[in-house]
Amino acid sequence: MGKHAVIVVDMLKDNLESEEHFGIAQEGRKIIPRIRELLETARTLGMPVIYACDSFLPGDFIFKGRMKPHSLRGTEGAKVIDELAPRPGDLILEKRRMSSFFKTDLDLTLNTLGVETILVTGIATPVCVLLTAMDGISYGFKAVIVEECTAAHKPEIHRATLDLYCKTGMYPLLRIMKLDEILAEIKP
Amino acid sequence: MGKHAVIVVDMLKDNLESEEHFGIAQEGRKIIPRIRELLETARTLGMPVIYACDSFLPGDFIFKGRMKPHSLRGTEGAKVIDELAPRPGDLILEKRRMSSFFKTDLDLTLNTLGVETILVTGIATPVCVLLTAMDGISYGFKAVIVEECTAAHKPEIHRATLDLYCKTGMYPLLRIMKLDEILAEIKP
Amino acid sequence: MGKHAVIVVDMLKDNLESEEHFGIAQEGRKIIPRIRELLETARTLGMPVIYACDSFLPGDFIFKGRMKPHSLRGTEGAKVIDELAPRPGDLILEKRRMSSFFKTDLDLTLNTLGVETILVTGIATPVCVLLTAMDGISYGFKAVIVEECTAAHKPEIHRATLDLYCKTGMYPLLRIMKLDEILAEIKP
Amino acid sequence: MGKHAVIVVDMLKDNLESEEHFGIAQEGRKIIPRIRELLETARTLGMPVIYACDSFLPGDFIFKGRMKPHSLRGTEGAKVIDELAPRPGDLILEKRRMSSFFKTDLDLTLNTLGVETILVTGIATPVCVLLTAMDGISYGFKAVIVEECTAAHKPEIHRATLDLYCKTGMYPLLRIMKLDEILAEIKP
Repeated sequence: MGKHAVIVVDMLKDNLESEEHFGIAQEGRKIIPRIRELLETARTLGMPVIYACDSFLPGDFIFKGRMKPHSLRGTEGAKVIDELAPRPGDLILEKRRMSSFFKTDLDLTLNTLGVETILVTGIATPVCVLLTAMDGISYGFKAVIVEECTAAHKPEIHRATLDLYCKTGMYPLLRIMKLDEILAEIKP
Repeated sequence: MGKHAVIVVDMLKDNLESEEHFGIAQEGRKIIPRIRELLETARTLGMPVIYACDSFLPGDFIFKGRMKPHSLRGTEGAKVIDELAPRPGDLILEKRRMSSFFKTDLDLTLNTLGVETILVTGIATPVCVLLTAMDGISYGFKAVIVEECTAAHKPEIHRATLDLYCKTGMYPLLRIMKLDEILAEIKP
Repeated sequence: MGKHAVIVVDMLKDNLESEEHFGIAQEGRKIIPRIRELLETARTLGMPVIYACDSFLPGDFIFKGRMKPHSLRGTEGAKVIDELAPRPGDLILEKRRMSSFFKTDLDLTLNTLGVETILVTGIATPVCVLLTAMDGISYGFKAVIVEECTAAHKPEIHRATLDLYCKTGMYPLLRIMKLDEILAEIKP
Repeated sequence: MGKHAVIVVDMLKDNLESEEHFGIAQEGRKIIPRIRELLETARTLGMPVIYACDSFLPGDFIFKGRMKPHSLRGTEGAKVIDELAPRPGDLILEKRRMSSFFKTDLDLTLNTLGVETILVTGIATPVCVLLTAMDGISYGFKAVIVEECTAAHKPEIHRATLDLYCKTGMYPLLRIMKLDEILAEIKP
């Protein structure tokens, strides 16, 4: 299977501690313990842990729709929540759009570290999580969306995304996996 | 609304005239008349028409999964089907991955032509169509997925994708629209 | 002329305060007062100031040659020198390669801020400075290399670069300008 | 040394057969025999040969300076000159800017083909040739500028570029080599 890395997408204070985004805050908080479980194993095994974090400017195009400015670069709200606080040696990646690869050096970093498979966790399943997984494949990495470690603003949206992408033409480069399955795969 | 362009994704001989990909060939052929209808209006109005076409190398990473090599660069199968044959003045874009923007000059072309909104048509809805629309937004373009001009290998997969993405945080930068709605919007 | 921004390239502790890179440290320190002069005017006029800073990983490809690891991500040596310390509102950009645009969101940032012309300062003239200016043009920005605000490890290398690129086919999208000339241009 | 590929940059009819660009046409034609010599050896050894060709749109930003529109996409002038006509199996890459890597899939192609070192030939030495070599390094490839197989609009400009970049911090990832030296290196 080659070397794995965990990517934690957008588990930020503005998303999870704000009343502005009620659904995603509620659903997103539910997956914290499962992400912690995965991170603990990952760190024990020496796997890279990368936090991909929205880091917007107020004038960004994506705020031209109905989404209000949030997770602004340099603000407290753009930081990872305390429960998942990065440890020394983890990498923090500021991203400007939905995919963690869009105009970032994530592909360089993964290649430099010898990573072959990315385990995508965080929020939200149909957007930043899915697009990170898909771009990962475009850049030459296998991608796993970890079922219990990802969430959308409604459970049925999360479920629908997993059902839609569990068996595309990209399978098994793209896999939807249970946490137990992926833990079994990465443990020596 | 600003200037629109039509993007026709992967309506290629290897996808639509091959027995290898039965589902997508069958469903994809059904949308040909509606894409022709949109293209006719677009050309009458002087809108840019861009064909984004898979153009793979045999060793490409995306063939490391279960997808067999197809739409290889330079082969007949990588050409647009005759029913939608490009006209003089149309642009043809060879792409190596799912999104029409991935390592192509599509964003430069759209900006040079003054395009603000892309109308995404073709196949398949949950993958190349969706990722083209989403990347379009990342690059600063409004994106419309035209319902009757897109298809997946099964009608229920097409439907599920539209339902999932009809009202994301990206709305109305991302819109799912009926052909009649978009025709009404672009007609002077 | 449209809106300008100043880009300060690689004026970092590891480059300017280390005995490892004697030539560039010596020559680079000479331009500090002139960059300060430009930054003072820029800030008075409300122009964006962007620090583009090498931020490498130890295993990066560019260290496979004769260049030793330096300016490593997260270390003190990768920080801007105190004499040019960023102010609140300035932007800091971590880059992994020579051009400030390579796998960064600099083009997005400049477009979001309405910038049309970049004033490139810092080190070293024939590599990171030139490549930032040239990539700027590729992304649609006019670029100015400010003569007294840039340096190479030897004065004759700096001079040779300016002479070589003062009148290319890119002129006047690419201009080599004296500090006085550019100050006259940007002052209202 | 790993696998090599030859990249032939901008040896196009509009550059070499036009009276518009007198200097580059004259100097560029002089290197044709040496490029042919390299290509012959490359093909004998099964090395990939890639033609990177300007393919502009009339409204492109780079024509906002003093450079007049040329090498327009789809025109005869954007084709490789007959003396260096691509053979079956060669790859042709349409580029929109100076570097052969800018918004193209060249890095994907080189990685898919297992290439480690690019041999850059063509015109013009200080711009498209140099930027292709430098971007090559940024993408993780060793780069060689082949002295007798590259040219600028004046011999002294060509010479000055080679002198400037023969021993940068990138050496030996970037090398300026004589044709004989590189032929000796690639021959088994």
